[in-house]
Amino acid sequence: MATLGIDLGGTKIALGVLEADRLVYEARVATPTEGAEAVLQVMIAAATEAIAESPAPVRAVGVGSPGPIDFERGVVLFAPNIAGFREVELAGRLREALELPVRIENDANAAALAEHRLGAARGARSSLFVTVSTGIGGGLVADGRVWRGAFGQAGEFGHLTVLPGGPVCGCGQQGCLEAVASGRAMARDASYAYAEPMGAPELFDRWRAGEAKAARIVEAAAVYLGQALADAQKLWDPEVIVLGGGVAVGGGKAWLERVELAFAAHTEGWRRAPLRPAELGERAGVIGAALAAQEA
Amino acid sequence: MATLGIDLGGTKIALGVLEADRLVYEARVATPTEGAEAVLQVMIAAATEAIAESPAPVRAVGVGSPGPIDFERGVVLFAPNIAGFREVELAGRLREALELPVRIENDANAAALAEHRLGAARGARSSLFVTVSTGIGGGLVADGRVWRGAFGQAGEFGHLTVLPGGPVCGCGQQGCLEAVASGRAMARDASYAYAEPMGAPELFDRWRAGEAKAARIVEAAAVYLGQALADAQKLWDPEVIVLGGGVAVGGGKAWLERVELAFAAHTEGWRRAPLRPAELGERAGVIGAALAAQEA
Repeated sequence: MATLGIDLGGTKIALGVLEADRLVYEARVATPTEGAEAVLQVMIAAATEAIAESPAPVRAVGVGSPGPIDFERGVVLFAPNIAGFREVELAGRLREALELPVRIENDANAAALAEHRLGAARGARSSLFVTVSTGIGGGLVADGRVWRGAFGQAGEFGHLTVLPGGPVCGCGQQGCLEAVASGRAMARDASYAYAEPMGAPELFDRWRAGEAKAARIVEAAAVYLGQALADAQKLWDPEVIVLGGGVAVGGGKAWLERVELAFAAHTEGWRRAPLRPAELGERAGVIGAALAAQEA
Repeated sequence: MATLGIDLGGTKIALGVLEADRLVYEARVATPTEGAEAVLQVMIAAATEAIAESPAPVRAVGVGSPGPIDFERGVVLFAPNIAGFREVELAGRLREALELPVRIENDANAAALAEHRLGAARGARSSLFVTVSTGIGGGLVADGRVWRGAFGQAGEFGHLTVLPGGPVCGCGQQGCLEAVASGRAMARDASYAYAEPMGAPELFDRWRAGEAKAARIVEAAAVYLGQALADAQKLWDPEVIVLGGGVAVGGGKAWLERVELAFAAHTEGWRRAPLRPAELGERAGVIGAALAAQEA
């Protein structure tokens, strides 16, 4: 059964039709900045085109959306990176316009599902997906299905407290993993330490060039990430852990090794899941949304 | 179907036959201290008697054992509080002696299952059980079944890192929840602060009497527990959280309120599960083992 996946992002909307675990159609459009109605119109137009042009008949639609989401009502409560996107009846509007079953999934959960079923965690019974980029998100998948949790909050890996009394996070808490180990957190620490504006890419370049100050910042962040991965191993105990996102890609093998060292140090005497780099890259969102549609 | 539950503890072995969600037979014997073979003999004799005397025919046996456990082989790898209990083929030996199907479960998981199905979390789709006593343990139950995790480590709530660089835990890591919030950790801190040996019960008495020093210790421990509960809410997102164990019982309502305050402070802007005191007390282990036997 072919399904259409839609990945709603802050700058682009990506679409893809999945049939027999392969993308047979792909498209992307810019995310309008004029508010929720404009986003909906563009999304419906692109989806209509995708359904018309897909080589396989589309039976259902899945959308990966930033959250929080009210899954029961299919309403996106608030999308932090999309202007005016608040209390949007995404599922209802798409169902009406496309006349197909529609399922909404959290974007990190969708990517987790894609990596679990068709990416770095395929074959595992359970997997934790973690994306480290501007922020830090994640998703849990067990027995081929997303574990959303009782309140749709499961997998909010970036908001584990790893440093009590630490830097204040975007979420308002202190010492969240995201506030000490994300790309934006590292940029904050680098800009302070170097007393000039500095993003994560330049920080990583300086780290690779052997600068001690850069190494302190990058390696401290990796240690907190390893600590949080160990927490996940002890609480939920996944079979495989998949790491994706811009920082994971930009940090490459050297960064993954640092994270692995910290993870191993925090799980001495315990069994631990292998850490695997994500395999599906940017397409994970679209593929996961299309997989979620199979349950619509 | 009546099943026999056996709860293997450091000082006693408790047995109970569960039929239609009620205990219809109960017994307990002291745990021998002469090694694993003696423990096995006493357990088999008590189980044989329970099966003979039970008013309902026993169809299967479940054992709640301290861990770690190799579930696939039914072998207890190591029981920290029972002398010489190492690499014991518990399932195989009982199966042979009793001629009934036998299932081994981790003792905290068994208690979690009991509270989920027949105790404080009944009716919930998912629950986290946390026991705070000498140490801190836990278990996750979803859809009526224990989530053991890929390596049998799920629910090891006491070993989340809540204070990087904090006190060294019995497990060898630093700053585990258990190392800052368990009865033994509070006793350590009280004995130091008062410069005299002091257990958790006396510390709690002094706290209730309004001593500032005691309050600092008890309340700091409650804050770390609240922080770890918030981590669990964000990672696994249970519908209900059940708190049991000697510290929870001894701390009473005042302690639970402190934990709730800390949990609420660490989940501001998030949805959170209700915290409920455990309902089954010491019987949770036996009941959970008997429930686990239903899957044998």
